[in-house]
Amino acid sequence: MDCDTIYTADYLITQNDAGDVLRDAALAIAGDSIVCVGHENVLSILYPNAERVDLGRAVLMPGLVNAHTHVPMSLLRGYSDDKALQDWLQKDIFPQEAKLAPELVELGARFSLAEMIRTGTTAFYDMYMLEDSVFRAADDMGLRAVLGESVTRFFPSLAATDVEEYCARVRRYADEWKGHPRIRQAVVPHAPYTTTPELLRLCRDLADETGSLFGMHLAETPQETEQCLKEHGVRPVAYCEKLGLLQPDATFFHLVDIEEEDALLLAEGRCAGVHNPASNMKLASGVAPIDTLLSARVPVGLGTDGPASNNAQNMLREMYVAALLHKVYHLDPTKSPAKQVLTMATRGGAEALHEPRIGSLEPGMKADFIALSLKEPNMQPVHNIISQVVFATTGAEVCLTVVDGKELYRNGQFTTCDYPALLEEIQQAIAWTRR
Amino acid sequence: MDCDTIYTADYLITQNDAGDVLRDAALAIAGDSIVCVGHENVLSILYPNAERVDLGRAVLMPGLVNAHTHVPMSLLRGYSDDKALQDWLQKDIFPQEAKLAPELVELGARFSLAEMIRTGTTAFYDMYMLEDSVFRAADDMGLRAVLGESVTRFFPSLAATDVEEYCARVRRYADEWKGHPRIRQAVVPHAPYTTTPELLRLCRDLADETGSLFGMHLAETPQETEQCLKEHGVRPVAYCEKLGLLQPDATFFHLVDIEEEDALLLAEGRCAGVHNPASNMKLASGVAPIDTLLSARVPVGLGTDGPASNNAQNMLREMYVAALLHKVYHLDPTKSPAKQVLTMATRGGAEALHEPRIGSLEPGMKADFIALSLKEPNMQPVHNIISQVVFATTGAEVCLTVVDGKELYRNGQFTTCDYPALLEEIQQAIAWTRR
Repeated sequence: MDCDTIYTADYLITQNDAGDVLRDAALAIAGDSIVCVGHENVLSILYPNAERVDLGRAVLMPGLVNAHTHVPMSLLRGYSDDKALQDWLQKDIFPQEAKLAPELVELGARFSLAEMIRTGTTAFYDMYMLEDSVFRAADDMGLRAVLGESVTRFFPSLAATDVEEYCARVRRYADEWKGHPRIRQAVVPHAPYTTTPELLRLCRDLADETGSLFGMHLAETPQETEQCLKEHGVRPVAYCEKLGLLQPDATFFHLVDIEEEDALLLAEGRCAGVHNPASNMKLASGVAPIDTLLSARVPVGLGTDGPASNNAQNMLREMYVAALLHKVYHLDPTKSPAKQVLTMATRGGAEALHEPRIGSLEPGMKADFIALSLKEPNMQPVHNIISQVVFATTGAEVCLTVVDGKELYRNGQFTTCDYPALLEEIQQAIAWTRR
Repeated sequence: MDCDTIYTADYLITQNDAGDVLRDAALAIAGDSIVCVGHENVLSILYPNAERVDLGRAVLMPGLVNAHTHVPMSLLRGYSDDKALQDWLQKDIFPQEAKLAPELVELGARFSLAEMIRTGTTAFYDMYMLEDSVFRAADDMGLRAVLGESVTRFFPSLAATDVEEYCARVRRYADEWKGHPRIRQAVVPHAPYTTTPELLRLCRDLADETGSLFGMHLAETPQETEQCLKEHGVRPVAYCEKLGLLQPDATFFHLVDIEEEDALLLAEGRCAGVHNPASNMKLASGVAPIDTLLSARVPVGLGTDGPASNNAQNMLREMYVAALLHKVYHLDPTKSPAKQVLTMATRGGAEALHEPRIGSLEPGMKADFIALSLKEPNMQPVHNIISQVVFATTGAEVCLTVVDGKELYRNGQFTTCDYPALLEEIQQAIAWTRR
């Protein structure tokens, strides 16, 4: 098979089934796909005419998947922190969100996408209001994405005066983005406690009708469980099961207040879950039982949640937080080992996005990959490259971000956005919060 | 008063008693001290002849204080992770440490110091074996430091064949480093469970004799408390009190298994404490009750612990971890707010190092400060600069590190070390672990 470009580096983490890590490695790309992974000297012979990009003291690895976020919320990064959940939402976040306009949402989205590209995320699953702005940003800036217009039972919303207008919007997105090589729609009701059984069933039908995926916040706090038991007589996962929402195209975010029975129901429905450790810590939601989920064979991705509750879109930092949290929570330092966490952020993310062509560097997979420089003082010496990636990185080591074979970032330069202009714009935009 | 240099930036966090944060600010430096802090236009008029360094879109703030670490352990970064504490120590860390030589210890120290300079730490409190290597590294590389030769009851150690030789070493350090403007010695027995009452009393006397500070790991795990109760009939802090160790020059590291009575004893002795959240999480030691300590008026600094249990020396990351941990542990998002965490990493660190001339940017204080660029995508927009520093940074934003008025790092360049040479050396040094 032909090859356009060979990327070489000191290390390559494949994340294939065998967990192979290569030294003096190379990755051969043709178009949007990987054609070969192996040792540098072998690939040089196999593809003598390919363009060579020698990264040197660096590690090549699969692009990270941010499996749950709200990218436009970079607008509210640091606007409100350290507050009780209801004060935070009702007094600070919701009133600001009510003033949002499409241009602002798109600016926030583009800025977050720049941060994700800069810190090694190649694919993400987003839900917000006026999501068409995010579709445009992801399309332009070259990231892979699953995107959904969030909906609650409260109308009018920013995006729709009533449920019919919401449905029309989802159908319009389906028409507009059908067959896109990188972008897929999800129907994403906000959460059980902000919807009705009727609205959830309608969303499920809408997903089927439009060929979209299905996602929702679920079991984020013990309070949600309490309310669900009171109103519906069952725990949140069982409530979803009763409504027919546990399907193989479904992804549920947070899954903090989960017991074994819940995990088994999710596994039976072949659903995916997403773990958001930093957000769950910052908002004091609790600690998701990832071992319970993984033992039940529920695939688990990793996500940052929105910039208002994180406050970054940095999956390298998120991996570190995930690795630490479960150790102290279970008082067991063998919990959430580096390999497990890296798998959540790569292969687990692929499952959460229902995109089997990403998550590992293997022939036939999409050419979605990143490289991290090993030249900064936190990155040496290298005893174990996976440990280094999970426990020692800051996010700024990322020196290359590639999606579908296309370079989106290399050594300080963004190729799909005018970053200096974006930086000026977002700094000016802050005035909106004071209106 | 005269002034050599004025540094200007969009923001300046003073960390003075009033918690002032300035816009369009300037910091005026003369020699090793701060002479004025104020608005850029005012200082420009006051000091028309000073050299100007315009940092632009950046935040000036006090240098961070890493109040507990073991810098030579960068040698073992990522060598062993995700293991039970005793396996980690006995099977992996101790056998490698037994093979250390002075040149290796110094290389590890220098590499960690580069990482600290790169990520905004200007002062640190270190304890390890063959600590003279760390004295030399801190002296050469320009950081402020409290340094101590760690000692246990097990002889021979790397540094001494018996306790007399250990004492001779401490006396030698005292002679060699007496009156150093930035470096001070501490006598640092390892921990209650690795020493004897006699050795601890000897260390206390040695601190008095040599005019050194006193530091020790204390109450790091519930197991330590259990053992102390069994062997000495009292909890670890009370054990120290009985031995006369609770003095105003003492600093105790970790303080995880602390009850109110312990905090009151520490406060009565006017001792300082250091919180090491990432290490306590990674090694599954538990969660230090910082509110109990702070309520009892025990000053609390923040530290990374060594690179083998963190795995970085990045105080910006450490602040983030501290801010998240106490929120989820207490299921209360108002715990460990950004300001409290920043104060631990600056003024708290100053108290832990018993160095009142650092920790805030005010006239008369030492010129120990850093600047963070606000140009990376995680750093905008700025609603609240303190929140941004604690919740959104990676560590790589640091663009300037100054100690005693001397620039140690600016925009990618280290001024007190040949970083590329150091990088080569540490990469080669890894062979030592395989000997």
